[in-house]
Amino acid sequence: MTMIKNITNVRGIKCWGAHTGVKSMRRDLAIIYSEVPAAAAAVFTQNKVRAEPVEISERNINTNHRAQVIVCNAGNANACTGEQGRLGAEAMMKVTAEMLNIPEEDVIIASTGLIGEPFPTEDVVNGIRNNIHKLSDEAKAGSFVANAILTTDTFAKEGFVGFEHDGIQINMGGIAKGSGMIHPNMATMLAFVVTDLNIENKLLDKTLRYCVDRSFNMITVDGDTSTNDMVAIMANGMADNTKIKSESDPGYIIFREKLLELLTHLAKLIVSDGEGASKFIEYKVTKARTEETARKLVRAISDSTLVKTAMFGRDPNWGRIVAACGNAGINFNYRKVNLFLGDQEKMVQVLEKGKPLDFDKNYIKKLLRESQIRVHLEVNNGKESGMGWGSDLTTDYVLFNSVYTT
Amino acid sequence: MTMIKNITNVRGIKCWGAHTGVKSMRRDLAIIYSEVPAAAAAVFTQNKVRAEPVEISERNINTNHRAQVIVCNAGNANACTGEQGRLGAEAMMKVTAEMLNIPEEDVIIASTGLIGEPFPTEDVVNGIRNNIHKLSDEAKAGSFVANAILTTDTFAKEGFVGFEHDGIQINMGGIAKGSGMIHPNMATMLAFVVTDLNIENKLLDKTLRYCVDRSFNMITVDGDTSTNDMVAIMANGMADNTKIKSESDPGYIIFREKLLELLTHLAKLIVSDGEGASKFIEYKVTKARTEETARKLVRAISDSTLVKTAMFGRDPNWGRIVAACGNAGINFNYRKVNLFLGDQEKMVQVLEKGKPLDFDKNYIKKLLRESQIRVHLEVNNGKESGMGWGSDLTTDYVLFNSVYTT
Repeated sequence: MTMIKNITNVRGIKCWGAHTGVKSMRRDLAIIYSEVPAAAAAVFTQNKVRAEPVEISERNINTNHRAQVIVCNAGNANACTGEQGRLGAEAMMKVTAEMLNIPEEDVIIASTGLIGEPFPTEDVVNGIRNNIHKLSDEAKAGSFVANAILTTDTFAKEGFVGFEHDGIQINMGGIAKGSGMIHPNMATMLAFVVTDLNIENKLLDKTLRYCVDRSFNMITVDGDTSTNDMVAIMANGMADNTKIKSESDPGYIIFREKLLELLTHLAKLIVSDGEGASKFIEYKVTKARTEETARKLVRAISDSTLVKTAMFGRDPNWGRIVAACGNAGINFNYRKVNLFLGDQEKMVQVLEKGKPLDFDKNYIKKLLRESQIRVHLEVNNGKESGMGWGSDLTTDYVLFNSVYTT
Repeated sequence: MTMIKNITNVRGIKCWGAHTGVKSMRRDLAIIYSEVPAAAAAVFTQNKVRAEPVEISERNINTNHRAQVIVCNAGNANACTGEQGRLGAEAMMKVTAEMLNIPEEDVIIASTGLIGEPFPTEDVVNGIRNNIHKLSDEAKAGSFVANAILTTDTFAKEGFVGFEHDGIQINMGGIAKGSGMIHPNMATMLAFVVTDLNIENKLLDKTLRYCVDRSFNMITVDGDTSTNDMVAIMANGMADNTKIKSESDPGYIIFREKLLELLTHLAKLIVSDGEGASKFIEYKVTKARTEETARKLVRAISDSTLVKTAMFGRDPNWGRIVAACGNAGINFNYRKVNLFLGDQEKMVQVLEKGKPLDFDKNYIKKLLRESQIRVHLEVNNGKESGMGWGSDLTTDYVLFNSVYTT
């Protein structure tokens, strides 16, 4: 029997996922706790309408770039809830700090679920009170938290990577929820990562932003950003390696690489769970002038409604891809580009320096029938590249998203 | 019998719409000619991938802000066609200038249709040669051109406004094509306006941009901008009014108002012809700090996939509208806003200062069943407002747009 590792395999991490009653049947409260205070960093939604827990967690992280616990409820987003919601979020933070006997500013809170419904403060606060003594490092506790943050997700999203540094095994685990974007107002994307690496907190913050830009910020289901999005990491240093303080540290590059690997894995799981989507599409832009422009092109293509419907229809419609690039807000010369379309196995070139090739439309249509397909654009303007992942736009997506709120 | 006026009712305007063979059955070549050189202005697509006629027409307009003829072919966009297309566009311009014995820089050309197909230069050039002597000011000639610029449009889009200035009747007529966005690569939006007003060309340019920003730039079907979009106006001065040279001229305000009225009329016709759309939605944002922010909010809401699917589903999903505003790229405080939803007759308030009201969901769902619905957001942050028009996102839209290119 192969052991599948999860966040409980990170030194000093205990967790629990409980049912408090906000959701009717499923677990709806997740607590991830580190035995010692950890360096912490987080990125938050860019939406100007921000949920109450986002305000509190950002303030707490900015106080000392440290945290010891992440508490997340599911079923209610605590967004657009006004004073009642603000007080509820504060109560959630205070009871956690009190029960664990840690400073309030070492608590990160998060919420996901319906927008604009009064926050069920009593259920959540009682849930924390009644479950905090259950915090555990058993493997099943890891599964419980991964499930307790879900809303309309159809499966729990977990990942684990290990690597060696300083002759020490470093462990890093994470959980996420998507972005089914299916149920009204439940579009929140959350990810929580823990590691026992010893790293300076400012550098941790920089690394998290670098990796989020290349993973979660490169996925798209429908281009909307929710009021509650959050990616947080705690690094508690219990691996006891010499503290990583600079980007030139030999351990730093491998940490960044592994964190990017973990976040990309979680991001791709979120796209895979886009209900109403029939295809998982990998976008690659290469030979661009800068990495930034490559990523802008990936996002412009993967966000285009016309490209996404073409992918649903297995249509090698290069004109829409080129037109989407023209709207990317960067200099773009279609006369230089090569374009390739295909499935996981095989790709076919459809454009050579902007000119359509005489490709076999039936063959390529057959490739695009696969559930995992690839789009590769060579800009031929430099050496940099970018990748992203998205879904197609289907009739099912529209049906799911058009149902009544209640 | 009521006479319906069209562009042929503008003094000095002659036109013709012909069939050259690029499209199998329908008229596919439009020529709009002024007996005397006219002040001219145009706005072009913001897409970085621009069709060949866009390049030529922009160059010609910039030479002397004057034009005497607009020639447009339908069925082939002359975009992504390389050298062959560039030569074809030049031939189109040259033969027109030669046949009419006018300078090349007084010719505006436009194309709409499939992207990336070789340009049918011979058909178009012969079409111009064989039809230019048919230029006519009969009413039917106006209908012919309105039809000759269509692609997947299901009806011709025309408008006419008259007003008095200097004791003289001023005539202004226009035609447009949309944005069915249905057929692959046929998303081009074109509009051509002619008037006999006498107005200075720089002021004409400024007025056109002002009006396009508030009409064509405020409609959305799927958020994509085509390679060929163009709005052009010729003002030939044959009404013989004293030339309007300044914004403080008494005739200026009425001209701008009437031009905006005409362009808004054409823009709304384009949205109405969004095949695969089931609803026409009017968005109004009021009490905003600036007109610019009001328009940004209108665009953010009307472009949101989640809002558009909710409208299809008759769902008073205010959370999605507020979240879309949060993504508009401006400062936005949801705690101040009032939101109203309804049909043409009746609106219901659903948010008061950001708080959901206890509205009757079944009643509002009934209102949203209408084919013309309204969304009205009060920002309560100032005195400015903006309007826009869009369609919903339907399962039919996805089906139409997913069909194979050929």
